[in-house]
Amino acid sequence: MLLLAALLAAAAPPPSPDAIAAAAPASVWREIPPDDLLLVDTPIGRMTIQLAPEFAPQHVAAIRALARSGRFDGGSIVRVQDNYVVQWAAPPQDASGAQTLPPDRRPPRIRPRLPAEYERPAQGVTFTPLGHPDSYAETGFVAGWPAARDRKAGTVWLTHCYGTVGAGRDMPPDTGDGSELYAVIGHAPRHLDRNIANVGRVIGGIEPYAALPRGRGELGFYIDGQAKVPLVRVRLATDVPDPPRWQVMDTTSAVFADYVRARANRTGFFVRPAGTVDICNVRVPVRPLP
Amino acid sequence: MLLLAALLAAAAPPPSPDAIAAAAPASVWREIPPDDLLLVDTPIGRMTIQLAPEFAPQHVAAIRALARSGRFDGGSIVRVQDNYVVQWAAPPQDASGAQTLPPDRRPPRIRPRLPAEYERPAQGVTFTPLGHPDSYAETGFVAGWPAARDRKAGTVWLTHCYGTVGAGRDMPPDTGDGSELYAVIGHAPRHLDRNIANVGRVIGGIEPYAALPRGRGELGFYIDGQAKVPLVRVRLATDVPDPPRWQVMDTTSAVFADYVRARANRTGFFVRPAGTVDICNVRVPVRPLP
Repeated sequence: MLLLAALLAAAAPPPSPDAIAAAAPASVWREIPPDDLLLVDTPIGRMTIQLAPEFAPQHVAAIRALARSGRFDGGSIVRVQDNYVVQWAAPPQDASGAQTLPPDRRPPRIRPRLPAEYERPAQGVTFTPLGHPDSYAETGFVAGWPAARDRKAGTVWLTHCYGTVGAGRDMPPDTGDGSELYAVIGHAPRHLDRNIANVGRVIGGIEPYAALPRGRGELGFYIDGQAKVPLVRVRLATDVPDPPRWQVMDTTSAVFADYVRARANRTGFFVRPAGTVDICNVRVPVRPLP
Repeated sequence: MLLLAALLAAAAPPPSPDAIAAAAPASVWREIPPDDLLLVDTPIGRMTIQLAPEFAPQHVAAIRALARSGRFDGGSIVRVQDNYVVQWAAPPQDASGAQTLPPDRRPPRIRPRLPAEYERPAQGVTFTPLGHPDSYAETGFVAGWPAARDRKAGTVWLTHCYGTVGAGRDMPPDTGDGSELYAVIGHAPRHLDRNIANVGRVIGGIEPYAALPRGRGELGFYIDGQAKVPLVRVRLATDVPDPPRWQVMDTTSAVFADYVRARANRTGFFVRPAGTVDICNVRVPVRPLP
């Protein structure tokens, strides 16, 4: 009987990563707090962002305040750089200058100089190592987020991956105020890790934003004559009718470990499973509440 | 005087990667052979692809034959999967089925069963190591291409990066025939390395293709009702009037080593240079002949 079971196990293909996520019990899913959900509504669709208050508390507080006061509304997508980022801004703080009000008419910023929340102390943080090599740092997961750590310095930070949302800034490291955000739409720009405040990630609806025409100005900023997608309404899920609810897989669970193993050892189409995976190709499972 | 020079050197910011490429002498640039240049002309612009005959000789021979005979013309973009690939096909070999002719009307394939050209012997190949860790393999450069190697097995292969062009295939590893190609438009799907034939890379004009609407079918295939971009003309540069000429930087040169160093140690905006870089964030300099 044991032999038969072993033969059957050998014959059945291992479940795919998607199958593992689909079969995961309710106990491994964690609901995302509704005030961590930022909803960007524009004519091309809703982009749903999960904010990361554990990593960038002051930025997230500023972004929540901006959203609650409707300060993003009337802004627009200001930059789309191929293989890099799509960036949007509240009306008065447009780095491209195209939408900038004259200085005497600009409303005060919520908080003009947010601190450089690029990493945080590792103490007290549950870090689940990915267990595979990385070009930049030791990688793993913290409470559902792709992350990295420096054991010697005792710090952890969010890694830049496809969909990562960061706070735009100018040259000085503390000039971001949360009113201009970007989402990664290309190969993970990991060189930005610890150089900018990562404030969250897109968990739904990125496709039409990633498919926007690239800006023809320097760094992909839109120039005159390029139609800009307007920000119609940017709010927290707590402040809209019919608030969406989302869940993220517990990255400390055994099911998630199975999922990572399956991502590293793809079968079916794959004739040679890699046996390894980089942090940005794992893609932590996230889903609307079923 | 030496002290002064040292002080001046310390004061001047090191040149950026782009500045290094712009200042590179003519001697480090290699012209790409014109029959390695595949020009994909559609209403959204020309996508210029450098073919890789050194890595996938039979695939490249098949693709050249298809282009020379005009067999791609009248095909279309058949698939755009977010954070993955844009894929196009000659008219009779459309995997989505939408353009497929009835079996009795299909023209014969150029070569129905191309071999699995996924890697090649390392012997005789000049491999310049990147010198930084990688999640998947030892990475480096071969004749201008981002590549990886397995010293024990004695093989080298092209890595999947943004812009990499591969030959679509079905489940059996030898069903690709070069008539359906894809380009990567997202985070490097390195798990595809050695699972598919990489036949080249996009060196110009990828932007409008990466910005195409995503397909609403499974795996991002376009479905009925989604407008497909037609392939108007797909030819080698040898077969068009006013053929474009392109150059790639010699990846064995000292200038390229400087460039890689600068990519790993970004300055200016960056408050904390990574001190490392992954193979796909290097981006070998390529340019039209000045």
